Order: sequence, then structure tokens, then C-alpha cells
Amino acid sequence: MRFDEGYSGKVFIMSRDTHEDADAIIYGMPMDWTVSFRPGSRFGPNRIREASIGLEEYSPYLDRHLEEVHYFDAGDIPLPFGNAERSLGMIKEYVQKIVDQGKFPLGLGGEHLVSWPIFEVMFDKYPDLAVIHIDAHADLRVEYEGEVLSHSTPIRKVCENYGAENVYSFGIRSGMREEFQYAKESGMYMARYEVAKPLQEILPTLKDRPVYVTIDIDVLDPAFAPGTGTAEAGGITSKELLEAIHAIAKSDVRVVGADLVEVAPVYDHSEKTPIAASKFIREILLGWVKK
Amino acid sequence: MRFDEGYSGKVFIMSRDTHEDADAIIYGMPMDWTVSFRPGSRFGPNRIREASIGLEEYSPYLDRHLEEVHYFDAGDIPLPFGNAERSLGMIKEYVQKIVDQGKFPLGLGGEHLVSWPIFEVMFDKYPDLAVIHIDAHADLRVEYEGEVLSHSTPIRKVCENYGAENVYSFGIRSGMREEFQYAKESGMYMARYEVAKPLQEILPTLKDRPVYVTIDIDVLDPAFAPGTGTAEAGGITSKELLEAIHAIAKSDVRVVGADLVEVAPVYDHSEKTPIAASKFIREILLGWVKK
Amino acid sequence: MRFDEGYSGKVFIMSRDTHEDADAIIYGMPMDWTVSFRPGSRFGPNRIREASIGLEEYSPYLDRHLEEVHYFDAGDIPLPFGNAERSLGMIKEYVQKIVDQGKFPLGLGGEHLVSWPIFEVMFDKYPDLAVIHIDAHADLRVEYEGEVLSHSTPIRKVCENYGAENVYSFGIRSGMREEFQYAKESGMYMARYEVAKPLQEILPTLKDRPVYVTIDIDVLDPAFAPGTGTAEAGGITSKELLEAIHAIAKSDVRVVGADLVEVAPVYDHSEKTPIAASKFIREILLGWVKK
Amino acid sequence: MRFDEGYSGKVFIMSRDTHEDADAIIYGMPMDWTVSFRPGSRFGPNRIREASIGLEEYSPYLDRHLEEVHYFDAGDIPLPFGNAERSLGMIKEYVQKIVDQGKFPLGLGGEHLVSWPIFEVMFDKYPDLAVIHIDAHADLRVEYEGEVLSHSTPIRKVCENYGAENVYSFGIRSGMREEFQYAKESGMYMARYEVAKPLQEILPTLKDRPVYVTIDIDVLDPAFAPGTGTAEAGGITSKELLEAIHAIAKSDVRVVGADLVEVAPVYDHSEKTPIAASKFIREILLGWVKK
Amino acid sequence: MRFDEGYSGKVFIMSRDTHEDADAIIYGMPMDWTVSFRPGSRFGPNRIREASIGLEEYSPYLDRHLEEVHYFDAGDIPLPFGNAERSLGMIKEYVQKIVDQGKFPLGLGGEHLVSWPIFEVMFDKYPDLAVIHIDAHADLRVEYEGEVLSHSTPIRKVCENYGAENVYSFGIRSGMREEFQYAKESGMYMARYEVAKPLQEILPTLKDRPVYVTIDIDVLDPAFAPGTGTAEAGGITSKELLEAIHAIAKSDVRVVGADLVEVAPVYDHSEKTPIAASKFIREILLGWVKK
Amino acid sequence: MRFDEGYSGKVFIMSRDTHEDADAIIYGMPMDWTVSFRPGSRFGPNRIREASIGLEEYSPYLDRHLEEVHYFDAGDIPLPFGNAERSLGMIKEYVQKIVDQGKFPLGLGGEHLVSWPIFEVMFDKYPDLAVIHIDAHADLRVEYEGEVLSHSTPIRKVCENYGAENVYSFGIRSGMREEFQYAKESGMYMARYEVAKPLQEILPTLKDRPVYVTIDIDVLDPAFAPGTGTAEAGGITSKELLEAIHAIAKSDVRVVGADLVEVAPVYDHSEKTPIAASKFIREILLGWVKK
Repeated sequence: MRFDEGYSGKVFIMSRDTHEDADAIIYGMPMDWTVSFRPGSRFGPNRIREASIGLEEYSPYLDRHLEEVHYFDAGDIPLPFGNAERSLGMIKEYVQKIVDQGKFPLGLGGEHLVSWPIFEVMFDKYPDLAVIHIDAHADLRVEYEGEVLSHSTPIRKVCENYGAENVYSFGIRSGMREEFQYAKESGMYMARYEVAKPLQEILPTLKDRPVYVTIDIDVLDPAFAPGTGTAEAGGITSKELLEAIHAIAKSDVRVVGADLVEVAPVYDHSEKTPIAASKFIREILLGWVKK
Repeated sequence: MRFDEGYSGKVFIMSRDTHEDADAIIYGMPMDWTVSFRPGSRFGPNRIREASIGLEEYSPYLDRHLEEVHYFDAGDIPLPFGNAERSLGMIKEYVQKIVDQGKFPLGLGGEHLVSWPIFEVMFDKYPDLAVIHIDAHADLRVEYEGEVLSHSTPIRKVCENYGAENVYSFGIRSGMREEFQYAKESGMYMARYEVAKPLQEILPTLKDRPVYVTIDIDVLDPAFAPGTGTAEAGGITSKELLEAIHAIAKSDVRVVGADLVEVAPVYDHSEKTPIAASKFIREILLGWVKK
Repeated sequence: MRFDEGYSGKVFIMSRDTHEDADAIIYGMPMDWTVSFRPGSRFGPNRIREASIGLEEYSPYLDRHLEEVHYFDAGDIPLPFGNAERSLGMIKEYVQKIVDQGKFPLGLGGEHLVSWPIFEVMFDKYPDLAVIHIDAHADLRVEYEGEVLSHSTPIRKVCENYGAENVYSFGIRSGMREEFQYAKESGMYMARYEVAKPLQEILPTLKDRPVYVTIDIDVLDPAFAPGTGTAEAGGITSKELLEAIHAIAKSDVRVVGADLVEVAPVYDHSEKTPIAASKFIREILLGWVKK
Repeated sequence: MRFDEGYSGKVFIMSRDTHEDADAIIYGMPMDWTVSFRPGSRFGPNRIREASIGLEEYSPYLDRHLEEVHYFDAGDIPLPFGNAERSLGMIKEYVQKIVDQGKFPLGLGGEHLVSWPIFEVMFDKYPDLAVIHIDAHADLRVEYEGEVLSHSTPIRKVCENYGAENVYSFGIRSGMREEFQYAKESGMYMARYEVAKPLQEILPTLKDRPVYVTIDIDVLDPAFAPGTGTAEAGGITSKELLEAIHAIAKSDVRVVGADLVEVAPVYDHSEKTPIAASKFIREILLGWVKK
Repeated sequence: MRFDEGYSGKVFIMSRDTHEDADAIIYGMPMDWTVSFRPGSRFGPNRIREASIGLEEYSPYLDRHLEEVHYFDAGDIPLPFGNAERSLGMIKEYVQKIVDQGKFPLGLGGEHLVSWPIFEVMFDKYPDLAVIHIDAHADLRVEYEGEVLSHSTPIRKVCENYGAENVYSFGIRSGMREEFQYAKESGMYMARYEVAKPLQEILPTLKDRPVYVTIDIDVLDPAFAPGTGTAEAGGITSKELLEAIHAIAKSDVRVVGADLVEVAPVYDHSEKTPIAASKFIREILLGWVKK
Repeated sequence: MRFDEGYSGKVFIMSRDTHEDADAIIYGMPMDWTVSFRPGSRFGPNRIREASIGLEEYSPYLDRHLEEVHYFDAGDIPLPFGNAERSLGMIKEYVQKIVDQGKFPLGLGGEHLVSWPIFEVMFDKYPDLAVIHIDAHADLRVEYEGEVLSHSTPIRKVCENYGAENVYSFGIRSGMREEFQYAKESGMYMARYEVAKPLQEILPTLKDRPVYVTIDIDVLDPAFAPGTGTAEAGGITSKELLEAIHAIAKSDVRVVGADLVEVAPVYDHSEKTPIAASKFIREILLGWVKK
């Protein structure tokens, strides 16, 4: 008696009914416990799904239709409120399951800290992994207000645990002096302010490498994505982020997983942020998930 | 790999995992095709579910906990956009299934016209059915702008097809002169402006009868429920609607089904309308659904 | 080629096409130049008209239909921005014309100061006039920040120019100490916090007198009318204001004109304030305008 | 006693008082009955007019003043709610009248389907007409959910009835695979994603031809026009749309009519969408309407 | 060069310039780290201050003027983000200072957990203290999701540490079964759903006792206070809360401190919640602070 | 007992505690009395300060940290409501004090008219001053609706009193024909539509001159800054305004003062306008204020 086809308001459009024959798993991580300025991203995944019903299933950019991709929207991981450590543990365990089955994990945040346990799983599976990090913020803090687990620290943790030379950040326009200094000295790659152009220069150097892509929606200017916790003026357009997604799709890297984080619907009554996010997810499904 | 416990953002809190052992079925009817003034109730069911995660599972009013009730949230019926006739057919078919299995149908609208096919199923099953209709609007039009299937006509259709004497309307404060005249002459019962007090007078007269209750959220004053299409000033408070729900729960009528309609989230950025609606649904589950 | 019937979004529903055979004239006064806290009422009249298309044309409260009343919506007076003195002059001149033709002036504000020139015209025509003033604020200041023409002064000016004993204020819950002192000593009538009950007591004492009624929408609690400049917690419900309007309709006073002021739509995205205001205007048309 | 000059909140600024000596007629088409995702454009025309009072009457882009153009804002056509067929008939009849008098029809939507009856009138009058279609969506569906009359079908109907080679679409970034296929095979012109540049290339090829221009506001990115039903990320800027309007103004085509559709104010509390739309209308009046 | 008089948007109206001669200290506690559903109350204190500029300085209810009360608005305590324990420590230390100087602490939240360290200070100073707790929620949990420091636990901690018989809760309409059971068995007083009436019955029993009052704004119905994290339908009106404040003012209890918590402005674009809150603070200053 | 460090919600982040050792003074001018279309900028300064708490203190654009700049946020000047003349007098007097002490005045509006008294002080001190004016509107009116003191006149007054050849306007896209004519004939410099590019051409010609910069936030497109009174479609991006600020920072002009005006928060619920404005202020502090 479940309604499994058509509009249901519960899952991303065109989700399969079971995970078994799916090549990709969409899963939500409704966590915003460590957010410093304006929380609310715990409601992001549900609204991205809701907005997806306004999407066409076909992409003229990629000339591909969602029915050509097998994916399953598993819902949100039931993260325990306020407990960052246990939440990250649950995310890690779940993504491990996805990866063990050879499927593509496509995560919806939630705050950016959710990417950290995913990075752990991915580097464990793909030791030669490269991380493409598209964001307004460097996220290179060692700690935030004395807290090591913070939405400002995940990229630093990747650098320190898996090698800064495997991190490629794009669009960065905010951070502490120390973070920018670290970016310069650590050997990581960082493109400031822009995304599409520097990405097109870097992609050939990553040829055939497994790549995990993490996108913080606040890389967009608040004009395009007001629904986020730490909106930062001076960002890129939705058009440029689409270009970046398409550049990756058409490159020779092997995308093995991705996430889109920090959609906080309450700050955006026009719902343009989840509307844009749902389109990015569609293009990621169509462009990055291979059989 | 589905996440079945805790917060998922997809179903009403504490929904069981399957319909099989459920005594009640929650189902959404995301339809607003015939709405004359301000559409948007097609998004009502999803937001009522989302708001339910802010609820306690226990009601101090009824001293009962949701775990004592067995219900399954089946999601939204995938109604074909813009096609009222086919939509009503699908609703009828689905509710028939619920009723055939002896379960309590608890519908979430959508516009008020969705109640019409439910009435058909219910009267078919319970020929001595009484309808309790709580609403700002009489909904007694013969047609609306030449259209027989309209959100202004469902109660008239009940009167004409199943006997006006079986209809009990409460809280009515808007309608055409003809509708109020019809109310007087047809033999139906209509209480204007108020709900809780007249309901307490009527309930004893319905002792042991099967009763179907349809609640249009706009019976509340726009102060309490701005998120609705045809908001009408001068309504009742949330407190009075709770009293009405509790009066029914404590009466000797046999509630055999219910719906709550016309929540249109876009007009209410504070989300107080879905927040209130989700509480009403909780109280209905706790007070009206018996094993 | 003008569209004169049905929904046009331009005039209050059911407005006649010309002023000639109209018994009442609706006119807007889009002025908010002297507002101290939150301006925006200049957009009030247009939104009240727009909201009127969601209204039924029949009132079950008064059992009367708008087609039984002859009124013409003349649009907004083109007041010169920022010039209070000239604006008031234009309002006076216009209302004089309405009154000279024996018609009922029904004004839509705009800030409360717009009522002052109307009072002048009305007292000139009806020397035995009584003013019924329904408001959260006493509006009894001599001046506001050195300015005699302010939205805080109109009632004081009536008292001083036409006799405090002719002023009856209801619902007052805010003002300076001096205003409340003046209320006590001047001989005017003032009912604090409540409207319907004290009004029902006063109305018999005004039997057969010509009465002008000025309603400031902020007499409602901000829950019912958030769309106003100086929202003041602790107000009355829409239901109580409807009762007050109906009490006047059913009394033996002779209402000779009225206004409804201070609707400022920008603070109310749910539009519940213009929606309620349009209903009050309908009830005023049906209850107070006689042939 | 009507107020005919200055700000009235009822008509587009600087509208003449009668249609007789007008070269262009502005008219509203408040219809959104066939909208699939988020309705609300029925309120578009009134809000575009309201926003026009914030406009300067002079355009520095075109060095022209609204007093140099004779136009009359006729208000909204009183379309019967929910009845698409009868609504389209009324639009057709009305535009026929405008065109019969040799005037320029400038329509305000309403959903995009309203353009279909206008196309019929225009092709009838100008058999060599070219249609410039600026939109995010291809609008080339044969039907939508079994419905031939839908806001997704109007351009397809033009192609099939009047020749695909006479249709020039710009800015298209969404549609079904079949629509893009049809665009390729049918002989119509379609520029994806961009508007100003491809338009400047096409305009010389249309020299001296009568041209009708239909603009769907959703060609803008939701950052610029969130107030629309089917917002689609990745769109153009307001600047680019202004450039396109000016390119047409300065070209050698003969614009014989135009419309701007799909403004749905409820999704945009900042009112930036009607504010932008009113500027586009001003530029169209100044640039496209000739004596 | 600081601006110390008139409107500054920084402090509650009529705040003195220094704390030295103040009888009461207003201080903000911008903390919402443990909030389970919808965070945002960290912005409450600033918006309550901003809204205060719209207030009259005189209360007609109490016939008293703010200039008769000496108070100093000290600003917000600079609480360390995300660290509940350290935040509570800073609050305790600060309130201790206020109390040591014999002043009345008037706190603005922030989430309800901020009251816990205040209770500790107050009971330490006044061993015979009674706590009046006005709230929608029982706040009687032992822990919340394994966390002892949560906005759901402060009242329980008072009961356990200082005696349940010293706690008087009013307006409670939400909680777990265990909380209501504890309320019954522990010896505390709890009035469900209502505030003003039961309070008037209890106050005489507290004659001459030192009393601390904690008000959670969500005791109001969401119609009156949508700007709060855990809005709960079925609440009281602003009028009733004003009555309660005035009943305490006129009683024989000795109020020695108070707080108002859980104002979360982001959910309330009309700003009616901070507007109401600022009025409650004015009445508290005028009614409860004695020389 | 004042809280002087950390987040207080009262002053711009990292403000010093006293003005004495400050090189720059931030001050608010909460005035919007002469605004013609949509008022509300009186609340701008407080919200810009509130938004500043979301900012990093370091700028990667300028590689400079706020602790390297000594500035003091003095709060808002307590301007008398509705009295433009007296308000301007107070602003003039205050800025005179700042300038007399050799400090950099950094003003937050408020409507644009507030810049006029500042211009007077600055030209008095620096007879060879050049004014850089970044705005959507020419602000070159002689009067507005008969009023010489209007937010549409300040730049004209500079031209007439201090020489049009000292005025450099950028980004202008709206005004009366007369204003654009005056711009051409008067000898002033005006760049239409664009800011960054023409500014980079002009800056070398201003080498070593003292320069005052006035920025009207509405130079941004409403997509980037909806929170302003006279939003005008077709504007620049936040990115371009940042480029302009940085171009000035890196040029050889000597910036001696600046203001940012017309932020009106009520039209922007996402708060992206104050968020962007606070970033511009940070960049101005870091780039323009020298020891």
C-alpha cells in the first residue's frame, strides 16, 4: 500500500524502489549541531527532495535522462540530536555499507562536518583519492572555539590525515589568516573566488584518479543561495557551478562519491536554494554516476 | 538500507513500517486544482509530516502516547496534476482499499474537494453515517463558476446524495446567501462561528453512530492558520479546535475516518499552520483511532 | 475597452462603475509621511482592494449582499509624497465633495493623521457629531517630536476643536501618561483594552446622533493584524472587532462616514491583515451604509 | 470623481485615461489554472502595476520618456476561474479588438498558456509573423499530463500551426528530451542558456518582418526573479534581459505586440520580481511601441 | 563620543548609562546550543532591544513610567559558541555579581537552559525562594538524548536540587508522559493550559516569599509568538500573559529576579514576537522592580 | 559591568572600546524621512552591525586583519524622527567632531540625504576633495516634489556648491532626463551601468587627491541587495562592488571618509543585504583606513 511512483514528496524524483539494483545511493545527513552562526541545515535534505518535483527529468546540458541512472533515495540517517561524535559514527558506518556494495554515495547535508567521516571511508577504499572541495570557506581550521569537530575543520583534517597534496579547493573567499597561510604552505591547491576556470585547468592533472567531490552551497553568492547558514557576499553564480559540474562530468576523472551540504531552508522563503540544489543533484546523478 | 527509525523527515512521527498491522492509514492528497483564490495546498501533507518531528509523542490532554496507536503513513497518492476527475477516482479507489481492510483512513489535503470521494466510500460502507464538518466555509454550492467539481461543493453533494439530515457543520462564517438558505431549509445542522460549544450539544444526539469528521484548517482564524488558501477573518482559536477534537474523543460516537484539509504552507513562513495541523493529527490519532 | 465587471484587481469587489448613483464612496489615502516607527501604510488601500477578491459578497452576520449597497471605489487620492500639509488639504477637499453630494465617505488609510481633515468636514456638516474611535493608541498627543501634524495627534485635535465630550475611544492600550490624564480630565470617553462590551454600553446613549467611526487596524492584536506600523501586543481579536461593527450596525446611531487606517502590508507576508481589513470594509458597507 | 493623475496604485504609471488615442494597450491576464508546480501568477499583473510607481518615467538606456508614448492600461480581463478554454476565448476576443484598432497589445500574465490565443490573432493579422520566445523552458510539449491546453505547450502549437521556421527561442535551459529533439528537427531556431548574444545574431535576419515577442520571466535566474512558478537555476541576469530588449528596440524588426508572463508574487517577498518586470515593461513601451 | 540618549538601536529604551545607580540589570544570554528542533534564539536579545524603540515609556496598565525605574542594559554576555558548560558558568558568574550588588537580574534568552545557573545563584541567596515557571513545556526531563544539560531539563534540576514543592508551573501543554507523572508525584505545582487564573489562586499562598519568575515565550500560542523554536499550538494570548505579569505585580510576593527566554526572531518576519516580548519586559520593569 | 569583548550584537565586530585611540569612527544615521517609495533604512545600521558577527575578521582579498585597524563603533546618532533639517544638523556637527580629531568618518545610513551634511564638512576641510559616488540613481534632482532636502538631491547639491568637476558617479542606471542632461553639461563625470571598469580608469587621474566615497547599496542588483527602498533591476553584482572597493584600496587616492547608505532590512528576510553590507564595511576598514 505504499505509493511508489509519481510525486510523493518523500524522495528525490525518479528514485528506484529498492537499493538493490541501484548504482548510487542518495542519503540525507540532517545535522547542524556545530554550526556557529545561523543553524538550520538539518532541514536541507527534505526540502531538496521536495523541490525535486519541480524538475524536468531530462538534462539538456548532458543530453541524459534520469531513467538512465539507477539510484535509490534512502532517506535521512536518523542522527541523534546534538551529539556530533555519535552522528559522525553513524554516517561513517552507513557510507561504509554503500561503498562496500560498490555503490556511489551521494550525500545531502546538513553542515559541512558531515563530510569528514565520508572522507575517512573514501580514503580507506581509494588510497590515491583526490578531494575536490567547492566552497566559500577554507574549512581549514585546526579547531573552532576549542572544538576539533566543527563545520570549519573538515578540510584541514583531510590535509593532515591523508596529505594536503590530495586536496583541491575552489571558490574560497573566506577564512582566517592562518587558514590561507596553511593553504599556501601545506602543498594543497586552492583557487580563490573562482571555480569553473581553475577547475578546468586542474582536471586534466587528475586524469583517471578516483575523485570525491564535496560542494558547500555557500560557494554561490547569497543572491543565488540565501538559504545557508554562513552566507558570504561575492560568490559565484548558479551558472558557474553548473559549468563546474559539467566540466567534471566531461573530464577523465573517476568520481567515486559526492556530497552537497549546508542548505538551510529557513533563510530562503522563495525556496530558490533547494530549487537550485535539486538541479545540481540531478546534474551530478546524470553526469557523475556511471554504471 | 532504508532508515526506518527516528527522524527521517519523510513520514509522520512514529509511523509503523508496514501497513499490515496498522489500525489507521495516514495518506496525503496533494491536489489543489479547483481552488479559486490562492492555491498551494498540494504541499500541505509533506509539511505537516515535516512539522511532526517537533511534536512530543505524548498528549497530556488525552494521557495517551503515540506508541499505543498503530498507524502507517503511506505517503501521498500520486495524483495526476490538473485532472480533478481522475484524481478523485484514485482517492476513492485508495480509500476503498483502506476501508475494506477495516482500517481508519486519516487523509491529509489538499483542497476540500478531496473529501468527496471519501464520503462516497464511507456512506457506502456505513449507510447510517453522520458527517461532522468543521470549516469556515459552508461548501454548499451546487457549482462554482460552472464547475460541479469544486472545493466549494463537497458538502452540498453529501446533502443531496446521502441526506442533509446526516450533515453537521460547525464554525461556518462564509458562503453565498443561497448556501445559508439551503442550510436552513434542507434539514442539515449548521452552527455558525462557533465549534466547541455547539459540538458538545450535538454529540450526545449522535451516540453510537458511525461518524466521519472533515476539518478544513481555515476554520481557525488566520492568526492561528495563515497558511491556507481562503483565509477568513473572525475564526476560532487553536485551543477551541483542540477542545472540539477532545470532545469527540470523549463522546460516544464511533469515529470511522477523518481528514484535515487546505493547509497551504507558502502563505505561512513561520510554519505555524503545519505545526498546529500536526498537533491536531496527533490528537486525532490518540483520541479517535480505536483498536 | 475598460474591463468593468468581475475580478479586476483594481477596485473593491462589486464597486459600481460610476460615482453618480453611489450611496457611498470608497477612497484611498496612501500617506505615511508622519509615521514614527515603521512606515508602509501608503500601500494599504491597494492591498485591501486586492484582498477583497477573496471575499464572499454575502454576509451571514448581517444577512445582506453587496449588490444591495450602491458604492463606488474611486481609487487613491494622488497625495504629494512627503508633504503632510498639502496631502491633508487634498483629502479635505475631496471628502467635502463626497459629503456635499450626500454620500457616505469610506476612507482607506494610510496613517491615522488622514482622519483629521475628514473630522473637520464632518463636524462642519454635522455639528452634533459623535466620533467613535477604535484604536490601540490614544492619539491624544498635542504634538509629536515638535510636530503638530502627526499620526499621534488627530484625536486630541478633535477634542480641542469640537469638544472632548463628543469623542468615544475604545480599545486603547498605549499612550503617554499625559494622554491618559487628558482622557480622564477632558470629559471624553475612553474604554481601555476592550471594544465590543463598552461599545454596547455606550451606543444607546448616542441614539439618533450622527456618528463618524474611525478604526485603526492596530486595535487588533498583532496576531490578527501584524501588517501595521506600530503593532502593540495585548489587543483584541478579529471576532471582537466584527462584533463591534455589527453592534454599531444594529444600533440606533446614524453612521455618516468611516475610515479604516494603518494597514501596512509589508510587515505581513501572509496577507492576513489586508484579508481581515477587506472583510471589515464589507461589513461596514453592508451594515452602516443606508440608502 | 475618479482620480486620474499621479499615483493611484491601480494602473501602470503614466497610463492615459482612455484607450482612444492610445497606441498601445496594456492588459492583464490573471490566469494560472494549468500550472503544474507552483501556481500564483494570477496576481502578477496587479503587482507589476503597483511596482511601477517606484519607476522613473525616463529611460537613460533609450533616452526616452514615457510621456512620449501613448498607452492605456485597461486593467485585467475578468477571466473565469478554472476554465482554461473560456479564458483563452476571452483573451483572443479582447486582443482581436486591440489589433483591429491598429494598436499594440502588451499583455501581462498569468501563465504562459495565455500567449496561445494571442499568437492566433497575430498570425491571422500578420501571416509573415516571427515569434521571439524568451524563456527558461522550451514549452514544446504536445500535451502535459494528457492536457493539450497547458502552460508547457504554447510554443509547440505555434510550430505546428504556423510553421516551426517562424519561431525563435532564446535562453532555453529546461524541457523534455522530446522537446529538444523537436527543436532540432522541426526547423525552429533555439538558443540554449543565452539570450542577448544569439538574439543579436538573429535580429538582422528578421529585418522588416513583423515580430511578436513573448517573455517568460523565468528566463531570469531565480536570484533575479524568484517570484515565478517554475523557477529554474542557471538563468540569465536582469542586465542581459535589458540588453535583449534594447537590441530588439534598436533593430530593424517591426514589433507588433508583446507579453510578459509568469510573475507569481507570492514566492518573492522582496518584490524584486514585479519591480524588475515593471522596468522591462517600461523599456518595452519606450523601445518597441512606435506611433 | 558615544551616543547615550535617544534611539540608538543598541539598548532597551530608557536604559541608564551606567550600572552603578541601577536597581535592575538587563542582560542577554545569546545561547541556543542545546535546542532540539529549530534553533535561533541567540538573536533574541538584540531584537527585543531593537523592538523596544517602538514602545511607549508609560504603561496605562500600571500607571507607571520607565523613568521611575532605574535599570541598566548591560548588553549580551559574550558566550562561547557551542560550549554549553562554559556558557552556563559565565552566566552564573555574571548573575552572581548582579545579585551580590543587590540588584534585580532581568535576563533575556537564549534557550531555556540559561535559567539553570540563575536558579543556582538565586536559591543560594534566597533559600526560601519560589520559582514561578510560565511555559508551554514542562521542562522536567532528566536528560534529553543522553544530555543532562538541555533546554528540556532546567525545571527538573530545580525540583531535584531545591525541592519540587518550591516550583510552580503554569500554562504547560507539552511534555513526555514521565514529565507529567513526575509533576504529579513530586509535590510541585503544575497548572495545565492556563496561566492567569491559576496564578491568581496561587499568589496569595506565596505571600512575602522571594520569587523568581522564568517565562518561556512559547507559552503564547504561535499566533502571538511564532518566533520561537518549539512553537506549540493551543497556547495563551498576549493579553493573558499581560494579566499574569500584572497579577504578580499587584500581589504580595517579592520578585527578586526574572527572565524571558526562547525568542527566535528568524521564524517571525512580522517581528510580532520581539514586539510582544519588549512590552512584557517593560511591564516587568514597571511592575516587579522595586527600589 | 558592560560586556566589552566577543559577540555583543551591539557594535561592529572588533570595535575598540573607546574612540580615543581609534583612527576611524563608525556611526549610524537612522533616518529615512524623505524617502519617496519604500522607507525602512532607519533600521539599516543596527542590522549591519548584527550581521557583522557572521564575518571573518581577516580579508583574503587584502591580506589584512581587523585587529590591524583601530576603529570605534559609536552607535547611532539619536536623530529626531521626521525632522530632516535638525537631523542633518546633528549629523554635520557629529562628523565635524570626528574630522576635527583627524579621524576617518565611516557612516552607515539611513537614506542618501544623510551624505549632504558630511559633504559640507569634508569640502570645508579638504577644498580639493573629490567625491566618488557609487549608486543606481543619479541623485541630481534640484528638488523632489517641491522639497529641496530629499534623498534624490544630494549629489546635485555637491555639484552646485563645490563644483561638478569634483564629482565622479558610477553605476548610474536611473534618473530623470534632466538629471542625465545635467550630468552631461555640468562637467561632472558619470559612468552608466558599470562601476569597476570605469573606476579603474578614473582612479589614476585622482592620484594623491583626498577622496570621499559614498556608496548607495542599491547600485547592486536587487538579486544581491533586495533590502533597499528603491530597488532598481539591472544592477551590478556584489563581486563587482568588492572589486571597486579593492581598486580604490590599491590606488593612490587618499580616502578621507566614506559612507554606505540605503540598507532597508524589512524588504530582505534572508538578510543577504546587511550580510553583504557588513562585508563591504570590513573591506573598507581594511582597505581605506590608514593610520
